[in-house]
Amino acid sequence: MSTTETGTFFSAEEYFATQPPPADLEHDIQGVRDFIARQAKAGRNVVLVTSGGTTVPLELNVVRFLDNFSAGTRGATSAEYFLQAGYAVIFMHRQFSLQPFSRHYSHSTNPFLDFLEIEPSRDGTTSPPEICVAHEKRADLLQVLTAYKSVHAAGTLHTITFVTVDDYLWLLRAISKELAVIGRKALYYLAAAVSDFFLPRQKMSIHKIQSGKGSLHIEMDQVPKILKPMVDEWTPDGFIVSFKLETDGDLLIPKARVALERYGHQVVIGNDLHRRKFEVVFVSRKPLPPLPPGVKVEATPTPAADYDPENPPPDTFVETWLRIPIPPPSVPHTTNQIKEIEEDIVAELVRRHTQWMEKA
Amino acid sequence: MSTTETGTFFSAEEYFATQPPPADLEHDIQGVRDFIARQAKAGRNVVLVTSGGTTVPLELNVVRFLDNFSAGTRGATSAEYFLQAGYAVIFMHRQFSLQPFSRHYSHSTNPFLDFLEIEPSRDGTTSPPEICVAHEKRADLLQVLTAYKSVHAAGTLHTITFVTVDDYLWLLRAISKELAVIGRKALYYLAAAVSDFFLPRQKMSIHKIQSGKGSLHIEMDQVPKILKPMVDEWTPDGFIVSFKLETDGDLLIPKARVALERYGHQVVIGNDLHRRKFEVVFVSRKPLPPLPPGVKVEATPTPAADYDPENPPPDTFVETWLRIPIPPPSVPHTTNQIKEIEEDIVAELVRRHTQWMEKA
Repeated sequence: MSTTETGTFFSAEEYFATQPPPADLEHDIQGVRDFIARQAKAGRNVVLVTSGGTTVPLELNVVRFLDNFSAGTRGATSAEYFLQAGYAVIFMHRQFSLQPFSRHYSHSTNPFLDFLEIEPSRDGTTSPPEICVAHEKRADLLQVLTAYKSVHAAGTLHTITFVTVDDYLWLLRAISKELAVIGRKALYYLAAAVSDFFLPRQKMSIHKIQSGKGSLHIEMDQVPKILKPMVDEWTPDGFIVSFKLETDGDLLIPKARVALERYGHQVVIGNDLHRRKFEVVFVSRKPLPPLPPGVKVEATPTPAADYDPENPPPDTFVETWLRIPIPPPSVPHTTNQIKEIEEDIVAELVRRHTQWMEKA
Repeated sequence: MSTTETGTFFSAEEYFATQPPPADLEHDIQGVRDFIARQAKAGRNVVLVTSGGTTVPLELNVVRFLDNFSAGTRGATSAEYFLQAGYAVIFMHRQFSLQPFSRHYSHSTNPFLDFLEIEPSRDGTTSPPEICVAHEKRADLLQVLTAYKSVHAAGTLHTITFVTVDDYLWLLRAISKELAVIGRKALYYLAAAVSDFFLPRQKMSIHKIQSGKGSLHIEMDQVPKILKPMVDEWTPDGFIVSFKLETDGDLLIPKARVALERYGHQVVIGNDLHRRKFEVVFVSRKPLPPLPPGVKVEATPTPAADYDPENPPPDTFVETWLRIPIPPPSVPHTTNQIKEIEEDIVAELVRRHTQWMEKA
């Protein structure tokens, strides 16, 4: 670790050497391993979808924590479209964030109970009343329920939960290493809102921080950039998609380019906090020119030493904008009839991932 | 405001003079006002139940926030028992935290969809398949659904949501002032996990804090102690119950005593983070000795100037422990058959609140 006046920098290696793994890690990974083995046998592509925000606990007996805003809509919605496209999905999400299928009925006021009606039993007074689904909700619910039951029957969805950024980092490393066995058939869709900062175990207070002192000072260290070892070591053949969420739209493309240069992965999807439901931008490197037969190159080109990621040569990157019409505010979110931008995001990624597999 | 080297202290008055109200405040309060008027007409007691954690956003365009651990179980569960006891309930809760009735089916893996089964339609192939509730779930669900529908038919539950500690403080003040019109019939059950710290609007950054600087420093100010103006000004006749959650059990009773002395309200319910599902302690002042007829005293005795709340005279306070058997880990939380400590907490408070009303 190197300590400067602005904080301590942990490399990924130092992070995993000093911060404790989650208690259930071995058990969770055994489940993932079995799932991947079944999918590999069936010849399916597998996508790891991460979703929801990570927490940074301030105390060992957690009362307070720093959190990142995310309901998990992007991840849960995209997972459904990946399943539709024939992928097997490892859905690694923040506890209680939205999940595929049930997302249509979560996070509103008592939706489940408002759906249901009590009907007196048909054969008179002897048997108990029956519970049925309100008529106007039946068609939508039947569609979601049918898709849900068919995915469960096919065994193509595996769910893992995390809470803290520490859980997230340990799980991501372990799952990436497991998924590496299927090589280019693995897609990584890293939609979780991961904290940039963490509080090392060694600095945490054991009990709830007392408020008598008048003000709260928190000093956190930077989370190591794990995309770099992910590309270089954990899963070198995986097709890796990361996300950038910004509130200042002008930062999106420059920051996406820096990330691609630094970590060497395939796509950064940029989204502005207030426009993310109907507009995203794919940032990627331009394809290398075709090489003469027999010539091999590294999958990840190393930038020249004098390369300045803030001012790249104009033809190094390509941006692709995806946009859908802004839905009118009067349409309720719960109906299944609304076009979702995740449908287009997933279609474009499936296309690029297919090319990536064909190039192998 | 007074600024010391450890931070800026805001009085409640200074807080409301400098921090902005939530956008929907007027609209929300109109709804509460109408609800209280209906309950007053029906002669019902009304309890304000606050529930769930508050956030402290770090940015105006919120990406990161400090949060307080709380799923909202205590508040949602207690609200059901208050409704059973004939109270009208204003349920003021953190967005997406647990709610009465739906709590039985939230926060687990796809519970709603796993409950439902698709049955081919009875009359052959022409009509669509039907959706029905899995047989083994029917009895529990029917019980919850019946209670839910009957509360909605009676109009005795009113729900309000908050997200930030600022929302919470503004709503609490406004609702307390509205509830003051029913005098001693108002009960306050302040189970929300409210942040002790906040970031004044004037110190927030507009955009997402960038991580390039290596570490994150946050300095927050102390949230004003609003129980004091609540007792003295907003709702002087209300029966007010606050909660103390600690991870160090030794702090519970001393801190509860300090709170009672400082704020002059009626009960502090203390709970240890790890034992809160089966053990709580009620801390209150001993009843004053009966006074000769015609003699009046202040409802809130003012402590003598030399009173040291850390070392009170031994007979000033009374502690009442409530305990239920620790449920065996094998019993799933979702069944309705488990004894919940909130049943006993609410029964004891209804008893004390009734005495309080009779004393008036």
